[in-house]
Amino acid sequence: MSRSPTTGPDGAPQRTGPFVLSVDAMGGDNGPKTVVAGMAKSAEKNPEIRFLLHGPAAELKPLVEKRKLTDRVEIRDCPSTVSMDDKPSNVLRHGQDTSMWSCIEAVKNGEAEVAVSCGNTGALMLLSVMRLRKLPGVHRPAIACLWPSRNPSGFNVMLDVGADIKADPRDLLQYALMGCTYARNGQEVARPRIGLLNNGTEEHKGRPEMKEAHALIAQAAGPVDFEFVGFVEGGDIPSDRVDVVVTDGFTGNIALKTGEGTAAFIRDALREAFNHTPLSKLAAMLALTSLKRLQKRIDPRRVNGGVFLGLNGTVVKSHGSADDTGVSAAIKLAFKLAQKDFNTRLALRVASADEVMAAAASAPEMRSGT
Amino acid sequence: MSRSPTTGPDGAPQRTGPFVLSVDAMGGDNGPKTVVAGMAKSAEKNPEIRFLLHGPAAELKPLVEKRKLTDRVEIRDCPSTVSMDDKPSNVLRHGQDTSMWSCIEAVKNGEAEVAVSCGNTGALMLLSVMRLRKLPGVHRPAIACLWPSRNPSGFNVMLDVGADIKADPRDLLQYALMGCTYARNGQEVARPRIGLLNNGTEEHKGRPEMKEAHALIAQAAGPVDFEFVGFVEGGDIPSDRVDVVVTDGFTGNIALKTGEGTAAFIRDALREAFNHTPLSKLAAMLALTSLKRLQKRIDPRRVNGGVFLGLNGTVVKSHGSADDTGVSAAIKLAFKLAQKDFNTRLALRVASADEVMAAAASAPEMRSGT
Repeated sequence: MSRSPTTGPDGAPQRTGPFVLSVDAMGGDNGPKTVVAGMAKSAEKNPEIRFLLHGPAAELKPLVEKRKLTDRVEIRDCPSTVSMDDKPSNVLRHGQDTSMWSCIEAVKNGEAEVAVSCGNTGALMLLSVMRLRKLPGVHRPAIACLWPSRNPSGFNVMLDVGADIKADPRDLLQYALMGCTYARNGQEVARPRIGLLNNGTEEHKGRPEMKEAHALIAQAAGPVDFEFVGFVEGGDIPSDRVDVVVTDGFTGNIALKTGEGTAAFIRDALREAFNHTPLSKLAAMLALTSLKRLQKRIDPRRVNGGVFLGLNGTVVKSHGSADDTGVSAAIKLAFKLAQKDFNTRLALRVASADEVMAAAASAPEMRSGT
Repeated sequence: MSRSPTTGPDGAPQRTGPFVLSVDAMGGDNGPKTVVAGMAKSAEKNPEIRFLLHGPAAELKPLVEKRKLTDRVEIRDCPSTVSMDDKPSNVLRHGQDTSMWSCIEAVKNGEAEVAVSCGNTGALMLLSVMRLRKLPGVHRPAIACLWPSRNPSGFNVMLDVGADIKADPRDLLQYALMGCTYARNGQEVARPRIGLLNNGTEEHKGRPEMKEAHALIAQAAGPVDFEFVGFVEGGDIPSDRVDVVVTDGFTGNIALKTGEGTAAFIRDALREAFNHTPLSKLAAMLALTSLKRLQKRIDPRRVNGGVFLGLNGTVVKSHGSADDTGVSAAIKLAFKLAQKDFNTRLALRVASADEVMAAAASAPEMRSGT
């Protein structure tokens, strides 16, 4: 699917629609009804979106009709659903008739631009890697998430948050490059500031592979035109010091879930504090607008959508528990990435990692390094 | 210093005082005035506390007199101070005349029960390890912190949060045992529930060394009388599923700082939300008591005090930026650990790791494992 480029509202080149998104109707905690409701929200705001919707046609047809989406949606009938408990390897072997498989396949075949699913993350990742295949030069794909932050955009990008539990220095360099392209196209940050997550900001801190990754990313900053702020700490993830936080999938997963858990803990404590006495309940009623403003700023539904990076095709993973607002946020993100022809740009960027590695190999300080 | 055991208010055996705490007056962001103010708070509530206070006598004497602590405090005159920028290795080589060195030395010599310092963490850790030495059988000491949680006590214990960036399965087993003793004596949880931090709760998740640590800790649970809840995720750290979260110092440091950063971000967002309009400011005034209740629950000053575990002596690290409430919290913790004769109990517990390892080595499922 090639289209002539045009210029988007932000002045950056982007393509004209329509754009076809491939949506897995099944596998989310709230069922296909919620998925279709989220699609309707996005469709109303963006007339250029079309959908391929995967799942049992008999169940989906009335939902699509009810939302008056019939002429924007093509249903692909799939009898089976991947559940949250299904083992990924099992889905890969026997899941050809599932909605998730069909959803990924539509991107592989070039029928759709980006895939969106609320289903089992492990299965979705494995299917995506095995069916779409890794981009040339990519060793480990990554999952990037958006994190509420003090930045003007309101969000930072963090990757990898769980695609792979390991990452060597070269993988971390690729994450930096992929994160840079994602921040430019998904977050519209012209010259992203990239930080490498470590247990301290001093250059001597951390494991040996962190120091090596530091050297590689620093070397890439000039040619690729991003700013490398060096090591950052956990406290910097929601800060305005960086736009992109790079880490391995083990650490990233723990940081992400720790942040979510802390936010949920404070949310509950806030609720309890306001429920404590009749006077505090009254105060809460008066403070309702303020609390809603806060809620909106840190609402996980607004940041819904982990993106799988490093494959021949883009896949957006929505939270399993997403409601229609959450699904709509994931679809909006998928739409934006389609408009920017994101995956073509990502492939070009990843290719430049080889040049950085070659330059690093010929630089004396790297040859003598660990 | 041996004293006859008695029974504390909780029914557990504890010793009678007085208890001498060794306090480093210098090196905190707010100077010795704040440290002495914190001491005064704790001294007032606990008549059994005595202090050895380390720093420049000429500066400390008027502060101690002003707080009417003269008969509870013995000043140890030290001309030099370890700054936050001093390299730990440099402090170890040339820091004999610093207040931090003197503070640790008092515990080493048996003059004081527990050391407390607000100074440079790296230097304090290195001095503690080199001067107090590791307990027999301990490979890597750990720093344990308290984390606000949904538990009845209001806190969970997490370790290691930054003593060492690496930990092998045997170290993680020792952290579990040390965390168990700390939860019993510092938090008064009779039968602690211990979780191992991982990127998922399923048994097949994580790096191979996590699976090995899982097997070792499970084996120790029966003999040591704790409950092993298995793998836990980042979101479980503030939960009521566990009392103790075990992890390596790299991951623990990042989780701790991510949690602190998230809490600070939400606190600021809450403040902005209430400052937005005149009406929201009014609501904030009415909600003041509720907000203070919330603040008290998640206040980092109340959880102030990282404890170094695995040495011949206990060292409590207070936040560098602690105010008098924070310093007092750290001193209260040090006092409680002294009352329980904590380090003797810890040494006994650590010794039991050898038995677990021996049992594991003779169990067929471990011999054939990774």
